[in-house]
Amino acid sequence: MASLRLCAGLAGHRSRLCVRSLRTLSGGMTVSQIDEEVAKLLKLKAQIGGDEGKHQFTLKTAKGTRDYNPKQMAIRERVFNTIIRCFKRHGAETIDTPVFELKETLTGKYGEDSKLIYDLKDQGGEMISLYPCITVPFARYLAMNKITNIKRYHIAKVYRRDNPAMTRGRYREFYQCDFDIAGQYDPMIPDAECLKIVHEILSELELGDFRIKVNDRRILDGMFAVCGVPDDKFRTICSTVDKLDKMSWEDVKSEMVNEKGLSEEAADQIGQYVSMQGGMDLAERLLQDAKMSQSKQACAGLTDMKQLFSYLQLFQVTDKVVFDLSLARGLDYYTGVIFEAILTQNGPVNVAATQNGVDEKAEEGVSVGSVAGGGRYDGLVGMFDPKGRKVPCVGVSIGIERVFSIMEQKAEASAQKVRTTETQVMVASAQKNLLNERLRLTAELWNAGIKAEVMYKKNPKLLSQLQHCEDSGIPLVAILGEQELKDGVVKLRTVHSREEIDVSRAELAEEIKKRTADV
Amino acid sequence: MASLRLCAGLAGHRSRLCVRSLRTLSGGMTVSQIDEEVAKLLKLKAQIGGDEGKHQFTLKTAKGTRDYNPKQMAIRERVFNTIIRCFKRHGAETIDTPVFELKETLTGKYGEDSKLIYDLKDQGGEMISLYPCITVPFARYLAMNKITNIKRYHIAKVYRRDNPAMTRGRYREFYQCDFDIAGQYDPMIPDAECLKIVHEILSELELGDFRIKVNDRRILDGMFAVCGVPDDKFRTICSTVDKLDKMSWEDVKSEMVNEKGLSEEAADQIGQYVSMQGGMDLAERLLQDAKMSQSKQACAGLTDMKQLFSYLQLFQVTDKVVFDLSLARGLDYYTGVIFEAILTQNGPVNVAATQNGVDEKAEEGVSVGSVAGGGRYDGLVGMFDPKGRKVPCVGVSIGIERVFSIMEQKAEASAQKVRTTETQVMVASAQKNLLNERLRLTAELWNAGIKAEVMYKKNPKLLSQLQHCEDSGIPLVAILGEQELKDGVVKLRTVHSREEIDVSRAELAEEIKKRTADV
Repeated sequence: MASLRLCAGLAGHRSRLCVRSLRTLSGGMTVSQIDEEVAKLLKLKAQIGGDEGKHQFTLKTAKGTRDYNPKQMAIRERVFNTIIRCFKRHGAETIDTPVFELKETLTGKYGEDSKLIYDLKDQGGEMISLYPCITVPFARYLAMNKITNIKRYHIAKVYRRDNPAMTRGRYREFYQCDFDIAGQYDPMIPDAECLKIVHEILSELELGDFRIKVNDRRILDGMFAVCGVPDDKFRTICSTVDKLDKMSWEDVKSEMVNEKGLSEEAADQIGQYVSMQGGMDLAERLLQDAKMSQSKQACAGLTDMKQLFSYLQLFQVTDKVVFDLSLARGLDYYTGVIFEAILTQNGPVNVAATQNGVDEKAEEGVSVGSVAGGGRYDGLVGMFDPKGRKVPCVGVSIGIERVFSIMEQKAEASAQKVRTTETQVMVASAQKNLLNERLRLTAELWNAGIKAEVMYKKNPKLLSQLQHCEDSGIPLVAILGEQELKDGVVKLRTVHSREEIDVSRAELAEEIKKRTADV
Repeated sequence: MASLRLCAGLAGHRSRLCVRSLRTLSGGMTVSQIDEEVAKLLKLKAQIGGDEGKHQFTLKTAKGTRDYNPKQMAIRERVFNTIIRCFKRHGAETIDTPVFELKETLTGKYGEDSKLIYDLKDQGGEMISLYPCITVPFARYLAMNKITNIKRYHIAKVYRRDNPAMTRGRYREFYQCDFDIAGQYDPMIPDAECLKIVHEILSELELGDFRIKVNDRRILDGMFAVCGVPDDKFRTICSTVDKLDKMSWEDVKSEMVNEKGLSEEAADQIGQYVSMQGGMDLAERLLQDAKMSQSKQACAGLTDMKQLFSYLQLFQVTDKVVFDLSLARGLDYYTGVIFEAILTQNGPVNVAATQNGVDEKAEEGVSVGSVAGGGRYDGLVGMFDPKGRKVPCVGVSIGIERVFSIMEQKAEASAQKVRTTETQVMVASAQKNLLNERLRLTAELWNAGIKAEVMYKKNPKLLSQLQHCEDSGIPLVAILGEQELKDGVVKLRTVHSREEIDVSRAELAEEIKKRTADV
C-alpha cells in the first residue's frame, strides 16, 4: 500500500516538474518543438493517469463476472437454504474440492468445451486450470480416495471462458449446485430419488409450474441403430436431436441430412420417434414396437424406464414427469437415464419485466428454459482409477444461476422489500449524551443472542435512528431516555404500528424474541 | 468424454500393433536392434500410459490445495454457522465479489506479496488474477458503487502462491472470513464493535483461552519518531517489531541495528516501549510520558486508545484485551487501531496430537498462534475512487483455516463421532419384497419434512440396515413388516437403546420430530 501511495505522489510531482521546465524552455523553442513537448507530456500524463497525479483505475469486474450486492446475496442465501435443506432431507453429505485442478485431470473430459477452460499462467511448477464443472473433480475425488459409495451434494463456483450473456444469466463465473449418488445399487432406485429431489426443490422454490423430461441414452442409441444411423454418427446426431427444444423438426432434419450427411429415410424414422411423449405406457408400447424391440440396448433402457416410473408413482411425482424421446442432453458421459426440468410458465417473470420496462429482462423471462438436469454416468470414475474400476453414478445439477435470475426478478416485481440483514432491534435514544447507555444495552442484547444494531454516533437524531429502521426493515426499536433509565425500563417501539410499551430491562430480550419469532 | 474413451482405445490398439510387428521383424534383427526396438516401445508405452491402453492420471490435487471430505465439511459448516450467526447478530449484510479481478485492480496493493499472486494465462482479452485477499476487492466494490457506509461480512476462498505448509494449516487455496464497517462515524465505536465480535466468536467456538492485543499505527509511528527512527525507516522497522512474537528482543534489536542500519540508541529506546503492556492505565501513563507526548500522532492514538477501552468496558470484554506496544501487524494499509487475537493455551490440541502419535500435528498444535486480526484502514477505498474520496474502514479477519485445524484436531481427540449427515430416520424392513412399501413410507416422511434414508436395494438384510445407522449416527429406524402394514403401524426403533415401539403411521412424522428435537 505504502508503495502505491508513494508512486502516485511521485507521478504527480513528475508531471508538475515537467510543466515547470516547459515554461523555462519556451523562450528558445519553435512551435513544432513545443507541440512535440506537449504531445510527450500528454502521453506521459495518460500513462500515469488523470489529474493531480492520481491513478485512474478501471473500476470494473473482469469480463463475464459480477459482484453480488447485499440484496442479491439475501436472495441467493434463501435459494441455497431451500436447496440444501432438501439435499440434507435426503441424507446427503457434502464435500469440497479446490477451484483449480491439475490440467491433466481435466484434459480430455470436456471435448469441444475444452477451449472454454481458464488456464493459469505458468509461474513455475504445475500446469493448473480453473475447473469448468464439479462433476469431473467429484469423479477424481472418488477414484483418488477409493470411495465406492457416497451420496453427496456440492455447491461451488465454476469457470468457463464462454461468451457471457449476462442478460440471460450466463456468466463466466457461476455457481454449480450438484447432488449425486455413487454406488452399485439395484436399478433405478437412486435415479428415481434424483427426480424426486428435482420435484421437491422446484416446488419449494415456487418458480411456477414445471415439467421434468426423462429419457435414456440406451433408448436413444437403440433408436439411432434401428433407424439406420451409422455407429460413428450416434453422438453428432444426438447433439442435433438435442436442439429440438429450440429448433423446429424441419430445421433439425435439415441439419441431420445436409450438415451431418444422414440419409433422409433415417432422419424421417428418427422424426417419428422423437415426437413421442408419455409415461410408463409409452415405455410399454415401445417395448412392443416392431423396430425398437430389435435393439437390445433400447429394450434394456425401456425396461428400466418402466421400473423408474413405478418408483416415481410411489414417490407421487408422475404428475410432472414425462418420458420424452426428443430429450438428448449435450454431455457425452451419460450412460443411462437422462433428465431435464423446464419451467412451463413465465407468468410472474414477464410481469416483472413489463413493470420495469426493461427489454432485456423480458427476453430473459421467456428464454429461461431448463432449470435442472442430470443423468446416469457409470463410466466417469473408472477413467480416473488406475485399474479402471467403475463406480456407477447418477446425479442432478440445479441451474442455480437461472433460479437466482428468476428470484431476483420476482423480488423486483413484488411490493415486499428484500431485507439484507436479520436485525431484530435498534437500540436508540431520544436525548443527548446517552451513547454509553446505548452501547451497554446493545451488548446486553448481543449477549442474550438478540440481533441488535446501534448507531455509531455520539448524539444521533431519533428521526435518523427510526429512518434507518424503516430503510432496512428492522421491526423494533429499544428507546432509552433519562426517565427509562431511572425506572429500569426500556421503551419498546414497533416500527410498523408505532405502538410503544415500557418493558422492564430484565425482560427485554425475551420480549424481543417473542415479538420477532415469526420474522 | 467420448473423445477420451476413443483416445485410450487407440493408444491400446497402437501398442498391440507394435508388438505384433516386432514379432514379424525379429527374424532378421540383431539383439541390439531388438533392444533398441524394445526401449522405443517401452518409451511409447510410458508415454501413452500403463497397461491395456489405460491413461495413468496423476491422482492428486494441485500443490498446496486439498479436498475437504464430509467430516471436514461438517466441522467447517459448524464453524461457519457460529461465525455467521455472530456477524448477523451485529447487523451485518454480506456481499460477494468474483474470484478473479483485473490485474490492474490488484497491482500495487500487496507490496512484496505481489509475487504470490496467481495470474491467469493470457488467452486473449483482459489480464486477470486470482485475488489473494478480499479486502482489496471490498475497497474496489465500495468505490465502484459509490457506497459510503456499509457493515458487511464476506467469506470466500482466496489464493496465494505461497510455500504451502499444510501441517501448519497454510494452503495456497484458503478461506478468508472478514467483517468490516465502512463509514464516517464517531471515533472508536465501530472499532470497539470489531473487538467485541472477536471476543464473541472465540468464546463461542470454545477454542480455549485467548487474548486480544491492541495497538495503533499512530502510536507506533509516534514512538518511532520520538525514538529517533528516520521517517523513511518507519515501515521497515515496523516489520521488524512485528517479529517480536516469534523472536527474542535481542534478535529483533540485532536485525534493526545490523540489517536495517538503525542506531543502537534508537533501538534501545524502542525496546523500552515495546515491552509495555496494559490497558487504559497504560494509555494514560504514556500520554504523560515526556518523550511520547512530544508526538502529536502518538497523542491522538493514545487518546483514542483510552476511548476504545472505555467502550470495551461497556462491552465487558476488557478481561481479554491488552494494549501491547509490540503489536505491529504486517500490512501497510492500516492507519489507526490494529489488533490480533492469539490462543494462550493449546491444551486439547496437544493431547490430540499425542494420542495420534503424529509428529507434524504436534508441531501444528504448538504454533497455531494468531486466530484473528484486523485494524483501521482509512485510505484504501480512496485509492480506487477517481476523485480520491476516502471511506474510513475498520475490519476484522477471522483466521478460519487455523480454526478449522484446531477443530479437526479436537474432533479427532474426542470420543464423540462427527456426524456428516443430519438424517433422523432410516426406513427399513426385516422381510423380503417390501421395497415398494419402504419407498412409499420414505416419500411420506420426506414430504412431512423428515430427513430420511432408505437403502437402494430390493432386499437388504436388516443387520446391514442397522449397521448403516450405527456407522452414520442415524438415531432412529422405522421398521416395516407384513404385520405392521396390516396394523397400519410402524415399528420405531431407537438405535442407541434398541428400544422399539409401535407408532401409528399417521403419527410417525410427529413422533420422529419429537424424538430428534434435541439432536
